[in-house]
Amino acid sequence: MSKMLRVDMTTLKVSMEDSPPEYERLGGRSLIARILNQEVPPTCHPLGKHNKMIFAPGLFAGSRFPSSGRLSIGFKSPMTQGIKESNVGGTAGEKLGRLGIKAIILEGQPADTKLHLIKINTEGVSILPANALAGLNNRDTVTKLKEAHGKDTTVISISNPGEMRMLLATIADTDTEGRPTRHAARGGPGAVMGSKRIKAIVIDDSGTKPVKAKDGEAFRNLVKEYANFVTESKGAQAYKVQGTMGGLTFLSERTTSLPTRNFTAGSFEGARAIGHRKKVEEMKTQGSRWGVACMPGCLVCCSNIICDENGNYITSGLEYESVAMLGANLGIDDIYAIANMDALADNYGIDNIELGVTLGIAVDAGLLEFGDSARAIELIHEIGKGTTLGRILGQGTAITAKVFGISRVPVVKGQGVPAHEPRAENVTGVTYCTSAMGADHTAGLNLERKASSTEAIEASRQAQINVAIVDSLGLCVNSFIDPGFPMERITALVNAVCGLNLSYADLQDMGKAMLKEERAFNLKAGFAPGADRLPEFFKEEPLPPNNFVFDVPDGEIDSFWDF
Amino acid sequence: MSKMLRVDMTTLKVSMEDSPPEYERLGGRSLIARILNQEVPPTCHPLGKHNKMIFAPGLFAGSRFPSSGRLSIGFKSPMTQGIKESNVGGTAGEKLGRLGIKAIILEGQPADTKLHLIKINTEGVSILPANALAGLNNRDTVTKLKEAHGKDTTVISISNPGEMRMLLATIADTDTEGRPTRHAARGGPGAVMGSKRIKAIVIDDSGTKPVKAKDGEAFRNLVKEYANFVTESKGAQAYKVQGTMGGLTFLSERTTSLPTRNFTAGSFEGARAIGHRKKVEEMKTQGSRWGVACMPGCLVCCSNIICDENGNYITSGLEYESVAMLGANLGIDDIYAIANMDALADNYGIDNIELGVTLGIAVDAGLLEFGDSARAIELIHEIGKGTTLGRILGQGTAITAKVFGISRVPVVKGQGVPAHEPRAENVTGVTYCTSAMGADHTAGLNLERKASSTEAIEASRQAQINVAIVDSLGLCVNSFIDPGFPMERITALVNAVCGLNLSYADLQDMGKAMLKEERAFNLKAGFAPGADRLPEFFKEEPLPPNNFVFDVPDGEIDSFWDF
Repeated sequence: MSKMLRVDMTTLKVSMEDSPPEYERLGGRSLIARILNQEVPPTCHPLGKHNKMIFAPGLFAGSRFPSSGRLSIGFKSPMTQGIKESNVGGTAGEKLGRLGIKAIILEGQPADTKLHLIKINTEGVSILPANALAGLNNRDTVTKLKEAHGKDTTVISISNPGEMRMLLATIADTDTEGRPTRHAARGGPGAVMGSKRIKAIVIDDSGTKPVKAKDGEAFRNLVKEYANFVTESKGAQAYKVQGTMGGLTFLSERTTSLPTRNFTAGSFEGARAIGHRKKVEEMKTQGSRWGVACMPGCLVCCSNIICDENGNYITSGLEYESVAMLGANLGIDDIYAIANMDALADNYGIDNIELGVTLGIAVDAGLLEFGDSARAIELIHEIGKGTTLGRILGQGTAITAKVFGISRVPVVKGQGVPAHEPRAENVTGVTYCTSAMGADHTAGLNLERKASSTEAIEASRQAQINVAIVDSLGLCVNSFIDPGFPMERITALVNAVCGLNLSYADLQDMGKAMLKEERAFNLKAGFAPGADRLPEFFKEEPLPPNNFVFDVPDGEIDSFWDF
Repeated sequence: MSKMLRVDMTTLKVSMEDSPPEYERLGGRSLIARILNQEVPPTCHPLGKHNKMIFAPGLFAGSRFPSSGRLSIGFKSPMTQGIKESNVGGTAGEKLGRLGIKAIILEGQPADTKLHLIKINTEGVSILPANALAGLNNRDTVTKLKEAHGKDTTVISISNPGEMRMLLATIADTDTEGRPTRHAARGGPGAVMGSKRIKAIVIDDSGTKPVKAKDGEAFRNLVKEYANFVTESKGAQAYKVQGTMGGLTFLSERTTSLPTRNFTAGSFEGARAIGHRKKVEEMKTQGSRWGVACMPGCLVCCSNIICDENGNYITSGLEYESVAMLGANLGIDDIYAIANMDALADNYGIDNIELGVTLGIAVDAGLLEFGDSARAIELIHEIGKGTTLGRILGQGTAITAKVFGISRVPVVKGQGVPAHEPRAENVTGVTYCTSAMGADHTAGLNLERKASSTEAIEASRQAQINVAIVDSLGLCVNSFIDPGFPMERITALVNAVCGLNLSYADLQDMGKAMLKEERAFNLKAGFAPGADRLPEFFKEEPLPPNNFVFDVPDGEIDSFWDF
């Protein structure tokens, strides 16, 4: 991976340059942090011509290492007004790696509103007209583009909400079965791609070969070691059986941190109906499948394909976050209704997490009642079609709350709180406060509730540093950090792939440096530490059933950055 | 003035306490800055129970000094997320002064949505039910309350947009003729009052006497001196002839800083039709009047009463800002249409400045065409009635732009830019950037375009300090600063009224300290200097006809606070 591809949407010209040597150890999220700090004015309008959008696979992309194909998408977020890296599984990351592309940088903005398409293959890069795809949803877009460019191409696309620059618009990436079910979702990536007037990116890697590790023998041994780990790890094996949905009952019953009915409880009486292992086994007998890989070569396979009671396909990749936020948080205990909502969100390109938080607020606004999945589905169509009401909801939680005069709003830096209640998971709560990303569980998750603030801060810090490393390599958190593959062995892998001789401490230093670069962007964008706060209701309203409140003091929150 | 009145809307209890000695030299805006810093958590939700709303007349309130009855209303703004003081003429400030009330502090929030009324007279304070007034506009509210409580009472009220917590909802104060035409408008005061569930405050000062100056003789001499100044000052006399509307042609033709057609030009070909002296003289022959006092005892009398061509009353207080933002900025050159828009905005309680900026954005959103006053009036009704579209527009410029995916947005800290183009008035531009209030011309206006950034910074600083002083005394900028009454003579007046022996330098120090207190609140609320910026288009798009851009560098902007 040694090429940087620049696409200037003002002039509609592309250029390819060698990646500069100072980017050698940067990839994915860390490369994004560097480029955004170097090239984007932190106070620019996120939907204007000065913002840039960077697609960067991780350092391992294109190698044969399992689960190393996550794609990081970076930009100044129109939702948080800060730096953003949103990453996604699917097939694009690996193909960009094999094509030797370290980053695609989308710059500028066309003067008119016509849509464009970027096509990338071994012959080069081209910008093609795509106005004929205007208004199409993701499935129709992918169908048309695969017809035109080949069924094995990867398609990255936005749907109508992205074209309309809604803040909960995602960027979809086709999965291993060619469907647009994997999404870089958080912080408005679809809106920024829409603002660049790019409908889709088509990637064809035919004719390429896997990227070779610098130390082939060490690499092969580490692949074996990792494969053994996955086979033996209970955590990894559990993912294969019921994926991330296992979190539903665990969080509802053990940690009591499952957001329920617009964050008014941490346990949901319907959790077993939508996430218990028995339910999963029943669904398997009707045609649903678990143990599905979202990226080529994944060994953990935590994804799924969901069919209805008659075995008809509904959706793929129905993850914990989606079921929690569209189910428990809306008081909905019908897993098929939730699957239908997920399918709609995939097709319209809508962030499920932000959608669930927003629809929770819609209850306060009198637009929806808890448990009413039919009405929830109507509201998703309003968003997807961009009606006047849909445009409001399509801006996500913070804006919807403003428009309807609601002051109990579960957001940090304008981004909706995901499906880990910070009152019950105070480590994750510290992550929500301090991450430059806003409320983001993928920035540093830890299900525990620590006894002391100092412990919570330290645990969040360590989690954020490890995620920083993994996100820069293109690895998947669920394949490495969560099942517990040792960070020291990931270090060995970096050395094998890149021909380096780093210690884990070195890697941690790189992670720390990246976190500080992200924060530096936000400080320059106008954020002071006072922005690193949870909404007051998390500190004041006890969370049933254990009546936890988030009680890490503000001053200690600010000490997070003392490293 | 020595009493602080606290109204706890959680418990529906009131209390009256003596003003503490450390507040002796504080009044209006400076008292607000102190109390908000001491009592309101800077990161609280502005529409939640932790925000407080403070009504504070200036240090001179209730004295017989002319134009000293402006009322400052302070709160954490739901529009800017920072500290806010919004001040208003009318009759409330003087009456509170005569009643000996230095501040009313509204605290807490009821658990239910029922509306309340606060009644203040010499017998004390009471909270009365007011749910029967729900949804009423300002005129009907005032009519009913005057019927119930006496025709000479002052009524402070919100209308439906305030009840719905729209960010452009004002707080109306009845004028010298008893009409609700004076508004504390900027930054969402009506939304905060609505969040406290207070529909109105009725003030009855019967039985009170003017506040006596400590040094009666010096005070009487200064009143005479000021009266002579007003008689002799050309600036003050010009206000009497055509009020602030004289600004229309001056800004359009001389400074070229009149926002025109959504900030795409600084001159409007229709300026003479809506603001030239000849037009004003013609309107006077048809029944309109200029030289009207908005506050009791004002000598400058820059306000007006506008009648249509048949002499029928349309509105009062049709000021420069309203005509500029609802006229020039929307390409509307029909003064009667503008007067009708102003009348609607008064009655619905809508900030005319924010309305004009928002409707400019509505053109970009395809909701309106420039020059179409009939459609603009329809949209004002949508806001006033709170339709789905109206709720969007009712949140003002920044939110409307987000909902419609627009990236060219004339706001600073979320507040719409008023009718002084920062590209042509770079001093005012510096004020927009640096004021803790967001884009606010009343925070420190200067119509010049300075040759150097250093001069622009210094001129804005001096203007902001002087306004800080005047806003703390309850004086009117148009009666003192703009016609040029010497600040040294205002100092003498402070000494006479309060029995002090301050120099102008002392007063400046108090103004500086207040500005820094306001900024301290914002820094704690989460703002870093990067928030002190104009939107990029002001720096990049040349402003016709003189092709000015705003070119004060960011680093120099930040040097504003080096005092």
